[in-house]
Amino acid sequence: MITVALAKGALLKDSVSRFAKAGFDFSAVLEPSNRQLMVPSACGRANALLVRNGDVPVYVAYGQAQLGVVGFDVLSEHQMPVANLVDLCFGECHMAVAVKKTSSYKSAADLPAHCRVASKFTNCARRFFEELDLPVEMVHLTGSVELGPLTGMAEAIVDLVATGRTLRENGLIEIDHLFHSTARLIGNPLALRLDTGDIRLIVDAIKSQERKGSF
Amino acid sequence: MITVALAKGALLKDSVSRFAKAGFDFSAVLEPSNRQLMVPSACGRANALLVRNGDVPVYVAYGQAQLGVVGFDVLSEHQMPVANLVDLCFGECHMAVAVKKTSSYKSAADLPAHCRVASKFTNCARRFFEELDLPVEMVHLTGSVELGPLTGMAEAIVDLVATGRTLRENGLIEIDHLFHSTARLIGNPLALRLDTGDIRLIVDAIKSQERKGSF
Repeated sequence: MITVALAKGALLKDSVSRFAKAGFDFSAVLEPSNRQLMVPSACGRANALLVRNGDVPVYVAYGQAQLGVVGFDVLSEHQMPVANLVDLCFGECHMAVAVKKTSSYKSAADLPAHCRVASKFTNCARRFFEELDLPVEMVHLTGSVELGPLTGMAEAIVDLVATGRTLRENGLIEIDHLFHSTARLIGNPLALRLDTGDIRLIVDAIKSQERKGSF
Repeated sequence: MITVALAKGALLKDSVSRFAKAGFDFSAVLEPSNRQLMVPSACGRANALLVRNGDVPVYVAYGQAQLGVVGFDVLSEHQMPVANLVDLCFGECHMAVAVKKTSSYKSAADLPAHCRVASKFTNCARRFFEELDLPVEMVHLTGSVELGPLTGMAEAIVDLVATGRTLRENGLIEIDHLFHSTARLIGNPLALRLDTGDIRLIVDAIKSQERKGSF
């Protein structure tokens, strides 16, 4: 029995469609009435584990799920020991540094040393500013990071940007780019090593769709 | 101008009613149509900052809000430098250790050394097991912690319990108790020290309601 960890939210619909093309029908997880967190596939040969974004790499790293789908942003933030198998090319967004539109900073290197930077992705942000050799004070927030500069708590934020609407609506502007992010198929390294072929078949089926560009 | 950080979600309605009795009408934040994160009080003398639970102590610690309302569970987990001013006696719940109903463990001390414990509150959990002198491996999850024992990833969880329904529905049972939690009025220590009377008036008005037991 194969278990697949899927992230609730924005990535779920596309994740289900990728597994459908590989022969596993998890469409039951998309039913608005579904309250189950472990949902068997229509064929009964696999289970989907419905968890929060940040928990997908945890269940895969500990081997409770052999495969999972999660954004590169989460992988980059949590650095769990999982194999990054296939770039699924959906859920596109990027990690950016943003400041108030009225501020004079044109790039992250312009920010004053020891300024405050608010983020949900403090590990990514810390690495970025360390590479810039700019010491900053990280403020970890769990939501609505755009309030950081608006309340005057932080000079800048590091956050995921998809359409840019949240930044615009809050009078913020992007001044630097950390990395591009898309959804990834990830796997448990030990399960892949001990695999007798079942996991490889799924990974290959999903990989070949991406090559064919069937989405 | 006084700014009050309020937690979105379960504590919001009671938080608004406490401030109403102290003369500040923040009922606009309860409107289902409200999308604003900074909402002025009806009298215009104060602002409410609507943020996630875990971010309330951050805004208060950094002084962007002089006062805030948040659960003791969050204060205990994040240990930010804020003053714990008044026990507001609502939002009652407790932090507990739970295991599968079918397991043989009757208390946390029965758990095997080096077993895995899943939690959203890993700091609280770590302190509890250190005091027990029981080395455990903490697994940090961000949601649906009950899946930990169900998938076999963790022997036990440490989580907030209000009615106990989630535990029952998932075949889990409580075996130990960390602490009782209620909503607290918190303050920024420096703002309290520099206060010319405005903050003290609000704190006293809220404190006297609690003494009178008017709720």
